Amino acid sequence: MEDLPYDTDDLICALATPWAPSALAVIRTTGPGCVAAFGRFFSRPGALAKAPGHTVVHGVVVDAAGSPLDDVVVTVFRAPASSTGQETVEVSCHGSLPGLRRILDTLTSGGFRPANPGEFTLRAFLNGKLDLTRAEAVQEVVAARTGRAQALALDRLAGSVAARITELKSRVVDLMALLNIQLDYAEDDVATAAVPFETLDAVRDELRALAASYRTGKVYQEGVRVALAGRTNAGKSSLFNLFLKEDRSIVSDEHGTTRDWLEAWVSLDGVPLRLIDTAGLRETVNAVEQEGIRRSRELIEGCEVLLYLIDGARGMEAADREFLDAHAADPRLITVFTKLDLVDSAGAPGVWVSSKTSAGFSDLEAAIKSRIPWEGEGSAGGAVIDSLRQKQLLDRAVVALDLVRTGAEMGAPADMIALDVRDALDALGEITGEVTTADVLTRMFSSFCVGK
Amino acid sequence: MEDLPYDTDDLICALATPWAPSALAVIRTTGPGCVAAFGRFFSRPGALAKAPGHTVVHGVVVDAAGSPLDDVVVTVFRAPASSTGQETVEVSCHGSLPGLRRILDTLTSGGFRPANPGEFTLRAFLNGKLDLTRAEAVQEVVAARTGRAQALALDRLAGSVAARITELKSRVVDLMALLNIQLDYAEDDVATAAVPFETLDAVRDELRALAASYRTGKVYQEGVRVALAGRTNAGKSSLFNLFLKEDRSIVSDEHGTTRDWLEAWVSLDGVPLRLIDTAGLRETVNAVEQEGIRRSRELIEGCEVLLYLIDGARGMEAADREFLDAHAADPRLITVFTKLDLVDSAGAPGVWVSSKTSAGFSDLEAAIKSRIPWEGEGSAGGAVIDSLRQKQLLDRAVVALDLVRTGAEMGAPADMIALDVRDALDALGEITGEVTTADVLTRMFSSFCVGK
Repeated sequence: MEDLPYDTDDLICALATPWAPSALAVIRTTGPGCVAAFGRFFSRPGALAKAPGHTVVHGVVVDAAGSPLDDVVVTVFRAPASSTGQETVEVSCHGSLPGLRRILDTLTSGGFRPANPGEFTLRAFLNGKLDLTRAEAVQEVVAARTGRAQALALDRLAGSVAARITELKSRVVDLMALLNIQLDYAEDDVATAAVPFETLDAVRDELRALAASYRTGKVYQEGVRVALAGRTNAGKSSLFNLFLKEDRSIVSDEHGTTRDWLEAWVSLDGVPLRLIDTAGLRETVNAVEQEGIRRSRELIEGCEVLLYLIDGARGMEAADREFLDAHAADPRLITVFTKLDLVDSAGAPGVWVSSKTSAGFSDLEAAIKSRIPWEGEGSAGGAVIDSLRQKQLLDRAVVALDLVRTGAEMGAPADMIALDVRDALDALGEITGEVTTADVLTRMFSSFCVGK
Repeated sequence: MEDLPYDTDDLICALATPWAPSALAVIRTTGPGCVAAFGRFFSRPGALAKAPGHTVVHGVVVDAAGSPLDDVVVTVFRAPASSTGQETVEVSCHGSLPGLRRILDTLTSGGFRPANPGEFTLRAFLNGKLDLTRAEAVQEVVAARTGRAQALALDRLAGSVAARITELKSRVVDLMALLNIQLDYAEDDVATAAVPFETLDAVRDELRALAASYRTGKVYQEGVRVALAGRTNAGKSSLFNLFLKEDRSIVSDEHGTTRDWLEAWVSLDGVPLRLIDTAGLRETVNAVEQEGIRRSRELIEGCEVLLYLIDGARGMEAADREFLDAHAADPRLITVFTKLDLVDSAGAPGVWVSSKTSAGFSDLEAAIKSRIPWEGEGSAGGAVIDSLRQKQLLDRAVVALDLVRTGAEMGAPADMIALDVRDALDALGEITGEVTTADVLTRMFSSFCVGK
């Protein structure tokens, strides 16, 4: 594609695994002539040159002066039978940071360009390996926070959304064909279009349902913010820890993530919850107390589910009443009485839990589930989208079909109506990438990780 | 090997890349029947079963119920042509944490055992793919902090130490043969051994030099601790930052490492320096001040190079004199006058630098180099060891050959001397692993990373 800000048929390389010491690391390279170009830095260029696609060659990566850089296993993919559609070499190296840096330096000063984010997938799209919905799913799979989110993304990668769009689009094409026939048979005359409303409505409703599935996709992919609020000693930290103890912590062994006393990701039946203990913020030392309270308020305002905790053993106090009155109409609010183990039985209405014995925890989970906005919304024939781009294009197609219906009802001429049908088709074509611009592609792939 | 605490011919699996979201991740599996066992969780078991070694197969990993877990590329290695010597399957997955967890869970509940640290390399050793020096080098490559350290480890992986040991050992074997001839020709008599001292001394000296190279190896692998001490405002933080600014920071983009205001790894001609700014510790708030001073002292005591900074513009003060007097005999000490840019010319003896203009920085580097303990020590014919185990065995061989010499000088009988020669041979055999115990192996490989 000519207007892209970078070449799409030069040689690129990138580390595709995380930048951290480990047993193995993989450097990906692709582009026309990739095998020969990489061979200049390989101890066995002849073996590499002769290697059929989908085979591996053991050898040593060397620098321009021939000094060994690492003992590696190289996988060769021949065009077009590669993920990018171009000749591809994947180098399985030792996960040594200085070693990786030396190899990447050697490649980038030897004809390979460091790949932009998502550039491998972009090439796959440009070479017809994936439509745009599947290309987007590549990154969605990587970014998934729970097994369910990953499964949904995988489903999209397998083409669930693409298939759904193709099917719906073919029905819109049928509509267009019908209009064309009417135009053909009505030469000279201004033809009034006869649109089969039943068909039109069915397609429109299905497009609308698919667009609505974006909320589900978003919840699975981005998670639901659940804030734990309440007065000091209401039991916020204990409940926070109970969530973790229930073995739902989903990123516990991931480096550099948010797990600390303030925030954790847990999974509720596959939905990632971003659990925020606002307690910590208030308990900061005097100087920053004001800032803490401000941020605490912000978190409460930005959350999707608000757990307000009250010490069940002491009962509701004036400050609690004040908070509950202020949020009486807030649909996000769940009142939680803690320390159920210290009282004879649940008293005031609300969810009662004991962080000590876990009693009542499943009630709390059910209450949270009922507050998650997507719950109950249809998933549009199995496919769930997670791309704002796709949602906006689906919305555009729905609006266009709305115009088709209004126009037909009002007796608009077939050629006018055909314009709106064409717009719906274009929107659907953009979703899969049949119709697209360099601009859209550049924006889309820039959010990918490097090496994809 | 029978006494190992775990099987060496069952099926094992491990994530070989870091546990972090990324474009790609690699799961390694190995063991007899690995391909068929993995095929139960693969969408194309037939294609996998038929795949020749060193080829890749594209497909989908599925769970026991057949649900898709990830879209993957699988590399098949057939025994014995694999890194472990056993049938091996390497799975290139999307770097999605929940996806990886689902695959690993599926494998471990389907006949694969999570691999112990270093277990892939252990199998490679047991199956004759690597001697022990090369096995140890595998982990040394991964752990290397600078390009030079990685190059030295790579050299060992290529067999530099193994070759050196084999060569030296063959010369000891010659000695043994000589003694055996003397024993054969001196039946009944108590033979006095005729040992060629020149040969003996040459071998012993080379073994000693190789043992001494351990210090070099250790310096490259573990780094040199350089502490920056001095009074408040002596310019410690500015000099610390200058080290980083000189673009020598070697782990700057590694996640979760030590780079902060207190400590950083920088590279000095390939030697990793662990730079410690003791300033930060003293500047902590009142309550922990005592603890800070205690830790500061500890860091100064534990360092290998001690930079004592003095504000060059203000000159030496009483507290500085006190410190310098106390460390007058300390070979680690380098007195550094800072703020060279504020004075007309260097005054008192010591290294003068300006953190502002970098003036004098190369002098400081030279001074540090001269204090690094290994500098100037021989590298024993190119090979540099980095294993305490190897060093101790080399020491044992040297001691045994010392005994041979003393015995021969004192006219000891050939059969007595032969015992010491045998001990030297055993020590050398243990280095490469010809002679070894389950115990040694278990200890050695437990320090590896998982997936290696």
